[in-house]
Amino acid sequence: MIFETPKKVGEKLRLEGWVNSIRDHGKITFIDLRDRSGIVQCVGKDLERISPESVIEIIGTVAARPEKLVNPNLKTGAVEVQIEKSKIISKAAELPFDIGTEDLNLELPTLLDYRSLTLRHPKQKAIFKVQSILVDAFRQALLEKDFMEFQAPSIISAVPEGGAEVFKVGYFGREVYLSQSPQLYKSLLVGIFERVFSVNQIFRAEPSVTTRHLTVATSLDAEFGFIDSWKETMEMEEYVIRFIFKQIQEKCSDELKMFNTTLPKLSEKIPVIKLREAQEIIYMRTGRDCRNEKDLAPEDEREICKWSLEEKGSDLIFVSHFVTDKKPFYVYPDPEDSTYAFSVDLLGRGVEWSSGGQRLNDYETIIKHVHEWGLDEKDIELYLQSFRYGVPPLGGFALGAERMTMHILGLKNVREASLFPRDMERVDFRFSQMENKSSK
Amino acid sequence: MIFETPKKVGEKLRLEGWVNSIRDHGKITFIDLRDRSGIVQCVGKDLERISPESVIEIIGTVAARPEKLVNPNLKTGAVEVQIEKSKIISKAAELPFDIGTEDLNLELPTLLDYRSLTLRHPKQKAIFKVQSILVDAFRQALLEKDFMEFQAPSIISAVPEGGAEVFKVGYFGREVYLSQSPQLYKSLLVGIFERVFSVNQIFRAEPSVTTRHLTVATSLDAEFGFIDSWKETMEMEEYVIRFIFKQIQEKCSDELKMFNTTLPKLSEKIPVIKLREAQEIIYMRTGRDCRNEKDLAPEDEREICKWSLEEKGSDLIFVSHFVTDKKPFYVYPDPEDSTYAFSVDLLGRGVEWSSGGQRLNDYETIIKHVHEWGLDEKDIELYLQSFRYGVPPLGGFALGAERMTMHILGLKNVREASLFPRDMERVDFRFSQMENKSSK
Repeated sequence: MIFETPKKVGEKLRLEGWVNSIRDHGKITFIDLRDRSGIVQCVGKDLERISPESVIEIIGTVAARPEKLVNPNLKTGAVEVQIEKSKIISKAAELPFDIGTEDLNLELPTLLDYRSLTLRHPKQKAIFKVQSILVDAFRQALLEKDFMEFQAPSIISAVPEGGAEVFKVGYFGREVYLSQSPQLYKSLLVGIFERVFSVNQIFRAEPSVTTRHLTVATSLDAEFGFIDSWKETMEMEEYVIRFIFKQIQEKCSDELKMFNTTLPKLSEKIPVIKLREAQEIIYMRTGRDCRNEKDLAPEDEREICKWSLEEKGSDLIFVSHFVTDKKPFYVYPDPEDSTYAFSVDLLGRGVEWSSGGQRLNDYETIIKHVHEWGLDEKDIELYLQSFRYGVPPLGGFALGAERMTMHILGLKNVREASLFPRDMERVDFRFSQMENKSSK
Repeated sequence: MIFETPKKVGEKLRLEGWVNSIRDHGKITFIDLRDRSGIVQCVGKDLERISPESVIEIIGTVAARPEKLVNPNLKTGAVEVQIEKSKIISKAAELPFDIGTEDLNLELPTLLDYRSLTLRHPKQKAIFKVQSILVDAFRQALLEKDFMEFQAPSIISAVPEGGAEVFKVGYFGREVYLSQSPQLYKSLLVGIFERVFSVNQIFRAEPSVTTRHLTVATSLDAEFGFIDSWKETMEMEEYVIRFIFKQIQEKCSDELKMFNTTLPKLSEKIPVIKLREAQEIIYMRTGRDCRNEKDLAPEDEREICKWSLEEKGSDLIFVSHFVTDKKPFYVYPDPEDSTYAFSVDLLGRGVEWSSGGQRLNDYETIIKHVHEWGLDEKDIELYLQSFRYGVPPLGGFALGAERMTMHILGLKNVREASLFPRDMERVDFRFSQMENKSSK
């Protein structure tokens, strides 16, 4: 592997990788060779013509560079490989643009239209390295707390809370739906396994194109029983967040550096604030009166995060006690004032990262809510079945993997944090583009 | 936790869990209390009436049982908890059937119609404990080999190889599809990350009801580049299988015991045999002549597994060199005889566990196959884009998590190995059942 070359000075090696860039100086050719471990400069004489991004094999000897030619920006910058033999394994066609530069500087549509190519850029690859560490850390954190992983269903037979934003699937002559959330399944499983989590795709047919919505996203879901209070769900979530940050710090320091960013700042404890308190603070700070709103608008989320960082030293903040009747039927109303519920959002760097909280577990109360919310019991029968036969007090949370990746790395658009983002206008390629191709 | 009770004799504890079963002896009541760690017998006087499956809290003292009352079938069988106080946390309705028995003995439709309840049975829970260990071991094995996890897309815009068995999704006035396999995505990602894996749901609209097909299954996919030969894909798969078996052996010995089973037997090396050789052996052993067939029928798979166990001492066997023109366009024909391809199935205990092999990486050859297979380049443009710009020799495999779980535990129907199985007739509940309810 390329990252080992600095330790192999004087040794003869066989390396395989992609031609990251190539510089011809008459008889002498410099090749930056890239594999999954890094990039190293190779130098050879009278090489056959090789196009950038071709896959090649090089046999050569590692040599120390003269001190003044050391490249401090490259981990292997103190050495180069003197090519003895080279062979083209897979020849690349001519590139539509140069990807051997430090930054890609492409417009988002181009970045996505050439996804198979643009992902080869080290900064693009870094995004998904971070995401894979993030997802794995989520799982590890919960496995350590004795949670069991489950496979959440993508296809569901009914949409209890209305189908405006749901995708419909033809299913042997019937209509079924893509799941917007594994909420009901993870809750009912608490009646069986006590503590469960899943990494799953969720599907939202939101007919809007924003920088922070995908139609398909990766949801990191956790739910657990025998909680003493709604606060336990927050504590578990904070533990998971810290675990994830620690793993990213340890395993992705190079990637954070590439994006010139650091992990969100955490104070000793993530601050918790009620919705109404947050609105009061926003009013005091900006004069904007949102104190009767039932939810936070995007500008409110930004403002309360600003306040949290300035006053509490934390890039993250929990907002609790949202308005009960704006929340789903399973929300747990605060017995002291049932207008507000034990529901908790986690905001980070100006946007929502997760929502969670305590859920109802008493069957009679659930049924009461089902009726008040105007739902059909039949549509959630499997869920009700679980609670009919005894489920302990429970709660949980769901984190969005792409959004977290986006805000940890400071990306401008959530599409950059999805390998193959799907939105209203695009599944791999823009529909308009494909239709033009078809009509050719 | 309940499993700790044998170490706490004489101590006063607070336990929370489900009433697994209850036996009233006049004033004295015996309760088997269940949590995620196990079951323990609790005994109390003058308890209030508690229904089975209710969630209760017990405060009591752990006492050693007299020797002749020790229950050797229970891990906590040497102790019991003498109840001082008990409290009902969540009351269960009357059960439709007894689930406190050693076996459930329910017909499959009932098992699934009451999924939220039947999953509480320790043997049902055990299936998904094994599955979660299996899935996690798959990931761990590949992380150790420097593979990167990715999130495979569920929604795709085209079905290159025909749409008979594909689910259609309405997508903002357009039609898209649920992915049958992440094959093209994982292959194109080899051009970027070299080594990738994913745990993802795949969707097959097969209009048939068999004991081994689900419409939604969990696919464990791996793909990697810079292979020297198709045999490397087998070696990697064998490494993963052994890793998984080792983890299950270590972490699920109780679960294997519950199913009165052992892991599939492995010889020092999993045997490899070509399709035509397998057919010859089947002909020799049974007189059934399948030597000109292009694939193995279910009975052939059973026979060749029997042979493998008898002659090679292995419950698993690789079958290679399937017929090229029966395989997808990306298959790598054997240069020595292009009628057959470097494709490999893994069979285990009589059925297919996985398919894999080497894939084409040369762009010109891929295009040639695309035309020979009668496909439209436009439908796989993102895939072609990757190979246009240089991809090393590559291969991989895909394992079915539910099928593996089924055959490791000796289950009769793959539906038992899916928490919420979907088939032609059922999404949670049977469609016919729901329609009856609706028309009430």
